[in-house]
Amino acid sequence: MFTDCSSSTTSRLIHLNSLNGAFLPRPCFGQLSLRTTASTWRCTLSIRSSSSPSAIVINGKAEAKNIRDDIKIEVSRMKESIGVVPAEDSSEEEVLKSVSGFNDDPSVHGILVQLPLPSHMDEQSILNAVSIEKDVDGFHPLNIGGLAMRGREPLFLPCTPKGCIELLHRYKIDIIGKRAVVLGRSNIVGMPAALLLQREDATVTIIHSRTINPEEITRQADIIIAAVGQPNMVRGSWIKPGAVVIDVGIKRVEDPSAAHGYRWVGDVCYEEASKVASAITPVPGGVGPMTIAMLLSNTFTSAKRFHNFQ
Amino acid sequence: MFTDCSSSTTSRLIHLNSLNGAFLPRPCFGQLSLRTTASTWRCTLSIRSSSSPSAIVINGKAEAKNIRDDIKIEVSRMKESIGVVPAEDSSEEEVLKSVSGFNDDPSVHGILVQLPLPSHMDEQSILNAVSIEKDVDGFHPLNIGGLAMRGREPLFLPCTPKGCIELLHRYKIDIIGKRAVVLGRSNIVGMPAALLLQREDATVTIIHSRTINPEEITRQADIIIAAVGQPNMVRGSWIKPGAVVIDVGIKRVEDPSAAHGYRWVGDVCYEEASKVASAITPVPGGVGPMTIAMLLSNTFTSAKRFHNFQ
Repeated sequence: MFTDCSSSTTSRLIHLNSLNGAFLPRPCFGQLSLRTTASTWRCTLSIRSSSSPSAIVINGKAEAKNIRDDIKIEVSRMKESIGVVPAEDSSEEEVLKSVSGFNDDPSVHGILVQLPLPSHMDEQSILNAVSIEKDVDGFHPLNIGGLAMRGREPLFLPCTPKGCIELLHRYKIDIIGKRAVVLGRSNIVGMPAALLLQREDATVTIIHSRTINPEEITRQADIIIAAVGQPNMVRGSWIKPGAVVIDVGIKRVEDPSAAHGYRWVGDVCYEEASKVASAITPVPGGVGPMTIAMLLSNTFTSAKRFHNFQ
Repeated sequence: MFTDCSSSTTSRLIHLNSLNGAFLPRPCFGQLSLRTTASTWRCTLSIRSSSSPSAIVINGKAEAKNIRDDIKIEVSRMKESIGVVPAEDSSEEEVLKSVSGFNDDPSVHGILVQLPLPSHMDEQSILNAVSIEKDVDGFHPLNIGGLAMRGREPLFLPCTPKGCIELLHRYKIDIIGKRAVVLGRSNIVGMPAALLLQREDATVTIIHSRTINPEEITRQADIIIAAVGQPNMVRGSWIKPGAVVIDVGIKRVEDPSAAHGYRWVGDVCYEEASKVASAITPVPGGVGPMTIAMLLSNTFTSAKRFHNFQ
């Protein structure tokens, strides 16, 4: 029997988290094909007991608020930074000029290029133009190289993966020696998340579109980070009992029965997974707010570095 | 019963490959502790049949010769490059000055910093000083970032991992969708080997010193790259029948019974593994010569790029 996996649970979470605008969904996925018809975001409930989910719900929104509050206290001791946004219909040349201006402006401590860019712009050129000292997204290849290499430190950690690891730390989830599976190998989530988990001494496997038996491999994991953008792909049966699940996926799918005619669905079938996992992030209200908090944290780090402020 | 795993086989390989100086062992390992007493480089033969090893022996020396010959033919159409080596007792300042001179010299197309450096030199400073256009080792963090990121291309691939993948290609071993295990996460072998395997669409797991069950995980692999520097660590029982084994490890261990009082031992117990694997690289004569061939290949690539030579 097919059941809308996310209905009751998501409703509860929307209530809990109230979607007050602090959450910003962002395309951040790997290579798996995306389909958003109803059939893909529904999943069979293999466990249909009446018991409530057993997993601890990792409240990214609350943690993100804590982080923002901490930064706010520190920032009050510093001059506020200035941000300027280029017009939407800019040419590549104009964007490059703006980036160059921000690079040179000592009052700007962080530059974020919101992807995807319009098709008339070359993503690599524009990303390369961002000064590495202000690349608070952490996507500069020199940062990624520093992240991959032992004995080196990137100037900034990419925000979403950093937010995932921060949630694990804040919920006191052991990482050292644990089997970790990252689903997805995108430049902005999957790949850096795998590198970060490895820096934390997890034993990491990356699953992607060419992986033959993703369910079997995922079932070996103590920690799962799902970032493929395939709604409800990770089912309850994929999860080892007691595993920790971080769901980066977020996709808006049409649902006439929902209040606004759509709902947000993650990569993980929450209703099934929350009965098997020991801890799980909801969608929305899990990783998303943490991404924004980490962006703030990176920008603050940059400002402190610039002002040599301890 | 304990048996010297590598005796008869290594003797045969020394005969086959004749150790004529083309092979250069190089420290290239991860974080596992190294012990080179006799007990560590001996391994129990779990399979003591009289049959000869079933695995194809991947002849790195022969492939390296083919590559060198190919390059020689191409190079004959180009001016030869010039190399100069600084004195052994140089100060860090002198080395940096030499590196800077090589960076500026248009007749130098590749710069290799032989690691480890003497303790009075800062490895990171000297590696950072090498112009990325001449970093034929491929260790510059910008190169590693380019290797890790989808849609980017590093200027050079690190030589040993590149040699490992080249052997797989030359022996027509499928990589796409295969389970690959890399043992070791060093900057110069394990980590870039994992990134390269992933670029080739393998499903990659990295095993390191904090991994709890390396044997169990390794046994799931279709392709094993061992680069930990722990003689004979990977036993026959670790290998799935039919797997392909690339042994990067090479360690000189004392052996009074050997002709020179020592022998070379890899990370893999060759005598056991060669009965289980479908293909395996010997030590010596496997990956080592390929590393040198790839260094030549990278330098040639650099020269072609400099001269805009197709």
